[in-house]
Amino acid sequence: MHTHLIWKSGKREILYKGPIFDVAKVERTSTDGRCAPFIEVAAPKWVTIIPVHRSKEGIPMVVMVDQFRHGSATVTREFPAGVVDEGETPKEAAVRELLEETGLVGSRVTLLGEINPNPAFMSNRAYFYLIEDVVPQAKQDLDENEQIDVLSVPLEEVVEQMGTGIYDNGIMMIALGFFMREAKRRRMTI
Amino acid sequence: MHTHLIWKSGKREILYKGPIFDVAKVERTSTDGRCAPFIEVAAPKWVTIIPVHRSKEGIPMVVMVDQFRHGSATVTREFPAGVVDEGETPKEAAVRELLEETGLVGSRVTLLGEINPNPAFMSNRAYFYLIEDVVPQAKQDLDENEQIDVLSVPLEEVVEQMGTGIYDNGIMMIALGFFMREAKRRRMTI
Repeated sequence: MHTHLIWKSGKREILYKGPIFDVAKVERTSTDGRCAPFIEVAAPKWVTIIPVHRSKEGIPMVVMVDQFRHGSATVTREFPAGVVDEGETPKEAAVRELLEETGLVGSRVTLLGEINPNPAFMSNRAYFYLIEDVVPQAKQDLDENEQIDVLSVPLEEVVEQMGTGIYDNGIMMIALGFFMREAKRRRMTI
Repeated sequence: MHTHLIWKSGKREILYKGPIFDVAKVERTSTDGRCAPFIEVAAPKWVTIIPVHRSKEGIPMVVMVDQFRHGSATVTREFPAGVVDEGETPKEAAVRELLEETGLVGSRVTLLGEINPNPAFMSNRAYFYLIEDVVPQAKQDLDENEQIDVLSVPLEEVVEQMGTGIYDNGIMMIALGFFMREAKRRRMTI
């Protein structure tokens, strides 16, 4: 069906190897004979978790983390997220990352969606989980250069403010988009 | 409010300069004295357009493009998208990219949201526009290595299938998330 659109891969050369991704150059040829080099960025699988609970007043809340981000050089407010370790399933990574970053555990873990974060140059996959009825179980257990403030925010505020101020991480809008679809499927009101 | 989370920038070194982004290493120091190198990827601003119209039967439709993506090495189905050129506003880029990739023009252009696509390592911004009542005006006008099939898809199918099969671009889920929020604000049914 899409065979006419497929470019064939040729010579591949690693241009850069780094701590969070590698960059390769790949020669590709189209079905009509055009040939050019293209960029491929290889990174581990990523996982993002939307941890929800209700406030004492019954308001739907989501647990978020404030941290400095080294691409934007700003502090952003995000859902807990991390990298899927070797030998780990994305679901196991979601439960582990939530516990490490926030000390929380939940009662039910649902895959909301998975997607390539940006196939224009990324080759990895990103997984998005909902973890419900989260409660404290342990202390934060952070990596060497992680520094994270944890807080609970009304879900409605996150939906309303995403893309403004501190809510400035597109990966979190992917998570929220998948969540809004799930809410629609479950006929939940946000 | 978040001053304790801010890392101070030190020495900066370009590690890789490429056609779609550059990679730099920046030394940063935390307020509690930790010091480490971090990766920053600099790219132009990106723009994504959700072009909508109604079918003869009155069904809400969205115009999408099928193309080979060189990060995933697969064909993905996406909203029209591109790079904001030098001296151009994101809104001008949205109108131009829609016309170039699909030959369409619309009656109303609305900014749905803007966000850093991934502040963990990206430093650029991404803009998301809704363009309504799109109609054909010109022929496709593609860049040298672009090869794009244009089609109209029921909006409901896009929402339902995002993250499965050919609907495999996270940037499009950001767009769809912002769109779902706009639909909620306008009390539209998807």
